Amino acid sequence: MTVADSSALDTLIVALRRLPGVGAKSASRMAFHLLQHDREGTRVLARALEQAAAQVRHCERCNTFTEAPVCSVCLDARRDASKLCVVETPADQAALERTGAFRGYYFVLMGKLSPLDGIGPKDIGLARLFERALDGQVSEVILATNFTAEGEATAHVIGEALRQRGLSVTRLARGVPAGSELEYVDLGTIAHALVDRR
Amino acid sequence: MTVADSSALDTLIVALRRLPGVGAKSASRMAFHLLQHDREGTRVLARALEQAAAQVRHCERCNTFTEAPVCSVCLDARRDASKLCVVETPADQAALERTGAFRGYYFVLMGKLSPLDGIGPKDIGLARLFERALDGQVSEVILATNFTAEGEATAHVIGEALRQRGLSVTRLARGVPAGSELEYVDLGTIAHALVDRR
Ligand SMILES: [Zn+2]
Ligand SMILES: [Zn+2]
Repeated sequence: MTVADSSALDTLIVALRRLPGVGAKSASRMAFHLLQHDREGTRVLARALEQAAAQVRHCERCNTFTEAPVCSVCLDARRDASKLCVVETPADQAALERTGAFRGYYFVLMGKLSPLDGIGPKDIGLARLFERALDGQVSEVILATNFTAEGEATAHVIGEALRQRGLSVTRLARGVPAGSELEYVDLGTIAHALVDRR
Repeated sequence: MTVADSSALDTLIVALRRLPGVGAKSASRMAFHLLQHDREGTRVLARALEQAAAQVRHCERCNTFTEAPVCSVCLDARRDASKLCVVETPADQAALERTGAFRGYYFVLMGKLSPLDGIGPKDIGLARLFERALDGQVSEVILATNFTAEGEATAHVIGEALRQRGLSVTRLARGVPAGSELEYVDLGTIAHALVDRR
């Protein structure tokens, strides 16, 4: 017996620790809360995890999460195929879309270079990005990684590689406050940074 | 589209918010992490939640989490049936068990009185506790709720009710530092507080 007379409960506490930022104490608290006060929520969360694991895949063109081979943004033929915007996450892409200021396509890295954590070019699919950017239609790649140390380093590496391959590469203007994450920046600031891209 | 081209992902983010202490930002981060870096963990957690929801129930005698009608502690006939220790959670019971200083039985409230949150006597099963304590074998009830304001209030209410019904009621000694939670108190302090109960 660890905390109760149930191996299913012990197993659940261990499993909850796979969530980022959840330690032993939080995991116990979450398990107790669900079983004591929200059985329905326990089942709802179980089904949601199962469904997402089974259905969510990566878009073949832009790498974002989707349930189809190609996502709805990539399938939208009215967009400007000469412009490709590179972001770290789907949340960053959503923030850009909400501004209405960009009508090209995206590539979603699903991460950023982080040598200290052992995350290199292969881990964030740079080979696939280069293939996508060099499709012959893209003429400008807009780097919209976050303005953090790692986001800047990622933008630098991608920018250098794509310039060498003959593409025009721009970066969101520094209208975005340094150190912040795109997802939480107000729309006006993002729109302005798009117009002033350098 | 909220953050990606997947309703399964959106559903997962909403479901994760049913976990205590998880807001919109944490839920997105958890969902992205699981789908990007830990598909296996996603399925493991789904199964653990499903199993726990299906198998974990409350012990008919002491109210703790168990998978059988009556838990293993309550089934242990070598314990002292004259002593009943009241705790808030299974984690508190486990802390007391680790001291080896108590050989009676337990009643697990699975909560505490909290009038400000609308948690009254019915919500923490006081009627069942009174029935258990008045089985004719129990002569002393040891109140081991936490030494927080709510834990003290809970102990006070239970103590008054059981004394009126003719039982001897004691409280863990104040060897336990005020404001702390039993689960995280060192074993020696808990053992000492048991001996000095008043
Ligand atoms: Zn796509
Ligand atoms: Zn029991």
